[in-house]
Amino acid sequence: MAQTTESRFRVRYAETDQMGMAYYANYLVWMEVGRSDYCRECGFSYGDLERNEQAFLTVAEASCRYLTAARYDDEILVETGITRLSRRVVEFSYKIKKGPALLAEGRTVHVVIGPNGKPRSMPNRYFELLKATGH
Amino acid sequence: MAQTTESRFRVRYAETDQMGMAYYANYLVWMEVGRSDYCRECGFSYGDLERNEQAFLTVAEASCRYLTAARYDDEILVETGITRLSRRVVEFSYKIKKGPALLAEGRTVHVVIGPNGKPRSMPNRYFELLKATGH
Amino acid sequence: MAQTTESRFRVRYAETDQMGMAYYANYLVWMEVGRSDYCRECGFSYGDLERNEQAFLTVAEASCRYLTAARYDDEILVETGITRLSRRVVEFSYKIKKGPALLAEGRTVHVVIGPNGKPRSMPNRYFELLKATGH
Amino acid sequence: MAQTTESRFRVRYAETDQMGMAYYANYLVWMEVGRSDYCRECGFSYGDLERNEQAFLTVAEASCRYLTAARYDDEILVETGITRLSRRVVEFSYKIKKGPALLAEGRTVHVVIGPNGKPRSMPNRYFELLKATGH
Repeated sequence: MAQTTESRFRVRYAETDQMGMAYYANYLVWMEVGRSDYCRECGFSYGDLERNEQAFLTVAEASCRYLTAARYDDEILVETGITRLSRRVVEFSYKIKKGPALLAEGRTVHVVIGPNGKPRSMPNRYFELLKATGH
Repeated sequence: MAQTTESRFRVRYAETDQMGMAYYANYLVWMEVGRSDYCRECGFSYGDLERNEQAFLTVAEASCRYLTAARYDDEILVETGITRLSRRVVEFSYKIKKGPALLAEGRTVHVVIGPNGKPRSMPNRYFELLKATGH
Repeated sequence: MAQTTESRFRVRYAETDQMGMAYYANYLVWMEVGRSDYCRECGFSYGDLERNEQAFLTVAEASCRYLTAARYDDEILVETGITRLSRRVVEFSYKIKKGPALLAEGRTVHVVIGPNGKPRSMPNRYFELLKATGH
Repeated sequence: MAQTTESRFRVRYAETDQMGMAYYANYLVWMEVGRSDYCRECGFSYGDLERNEQAFLTVAEASCRYLTAARYDDEILVETGITRLSRRVVEFSYKIKKGPALLAEGRTVHVVIGPNGKPRSMPNRYFELLKATGH
């Protein structure tokens, strides 16, 4: 990952399950927090892409490898980077940490679509902003 | 409640928290399942109201009284009824049960709005369908 | 509210629904974030109460009044205070804001229980810490 | 997949996002519904494994490939099968469908752990019940 963004937050009680850990699907929510912050550091809100350009980064693939459990109130750090970027496909990769410990690693692949659900190209301005971060 | 609809489902592992119970916010999701089934038994999908009429039942108030914990895999029954109905405001009431035991009681008040977020009247066809159930 | 705690975070995409707003049950999750921060500012993690004392603040009642929609990426401020405090019952009240605008108001009532689910008294140390904030 | 279990439910409004589709993390929740039903058809509740044996199927890996969006109120079918089974590792595979259309495919890998978080063997009775389904 050429450049990464850091997102920090605590595990919510709502995110725990009866095993006493953060439920596994929530890691995908945390990745989304990472993506949102990544876009913001590139100079735009992901919401602008939807609102102003009618371009949507739909998820085509998601995966996560879970190493160590996250628990209620843990301070989570998500490191987010882009590992593949074209006008039609964006891949984000994530490291989810607690302090120096790696809790999980993930990856999401996104396809740019229009409001009709059909693939389209990423609007130029946003593509350049994402590219400028080093990819 | 003049007439009620019954919704049945099991508590998901995702819905539990580290206390070993269903997390309290999920009861509001279950009420939504109850409302959806209520509309369906009245003869329409709530989604049609949004899609065909651009009318949205936004939530103005929600409350829940929790009596007994629901646990993973419990078979939940939600009884949903309308306790107030006008062209602008709909109130649903809910009993959430496990077998004969009452787990929780809730209430949601909805206001009909248009896509601009402004209040509007419930489209006649849907109002009549809701009213025909006995209110 | 004698003294309040402030919690700040952004609305997650996961928290939106197809109406384009934050789904109503998520406000109860935000209230929990507020409670967690409140406990922390009183000098303890709510998790300690569970772990060290086997005392659990189960929810007996929750309610929310929704005034204005919260949307994706909005910066949310939750102001949390205790509006009732005894050794057996704690009531928190919340104001959910976006800038100066009040989005929602909520209230949760909690009963202290032990691991067997039976009511018990709040351990003295934690009761004093909560009381010291001004109630 | 030698033998599969079918789970059926409707997409909840809570599960949609502002793109008007089911949010991607919810597919992992649906997989969990599939796993729960799979265990039940094998003759036990997954909760028994935790409660009676102190054995937990923690998630080590999860992945999902998203083909077509699921929308509010869609009738979802999850087909769940075991694609790998040993006393220490269980892999489930899932097909998520709407009618004949494949919406998504997923896979989760689980490791059996004890209450201390250390790997252990699956209790014999449960291992035999899972194996008896044809693996």
